[in-house]
Amino acid sequence: MIDVYEIIGLIAAVLTTTAFVPQVYKTWKTKSAGNISLTMYITMFIGIILWLIYGIHLNSIPMILANSVTAVLALMIIIFKLKYK
Amino acid sequence: MIDVYEIIGLIAAVLTTTAFVPQVYKTWKTKSAGNISLTMYITMFIGIILWLIYGIHLNSIPMILANSVTAVLALMIIIFKLKYK
Repeated sequence: MIDVYEIIGLIAAVLTTTAFVPQVYKTWKTKSAGNISLTMYITMFIGIILWLIYGIHLNSIPMILANSVTAVLALMIIIFKLKYK
Repeated sequence: MIDVYEIIGLIAAVLTTTAFVPQVYKTWKTKSAGNISLTMYITMFIGIILWLIYGIHLNSIPMILANSVTAVLALMIIIFKLKYK
């Protein structure tokens, strides 16, 4: 049976990942990322990769899912930011 | 002895939390948050609170630290966003 805390973790994963999507969309749509700091997203990207390693160590499905998807999203923002600078 | 994975988790915590600070500063400094979606930050804030509950359950110091600080930062952005709309 799935632990209630795993469900809380999964909801957390969906929410924080979802919160990232509009930023990616806006950056792509407006072809602009003026208000977003590149340094911020690179720092965040490295942090997310480390969270992913930590999550794999903890065998935490919510952490692995959330950080895999968020890493891809953060990378997309970095690419947009560099492309539409 | 501290596990190497706890150290990775702590570095992850510092990086993703640090990545959030410039956004708070910029929102406060420019008295504007035009490019930041309020819905995004509210979604993120709820997600962070759930991550915090999950981290407490896992007894993970990095997750508890990161999500406590990030929750406060996200809340500050939400307040700025409402104030300087």
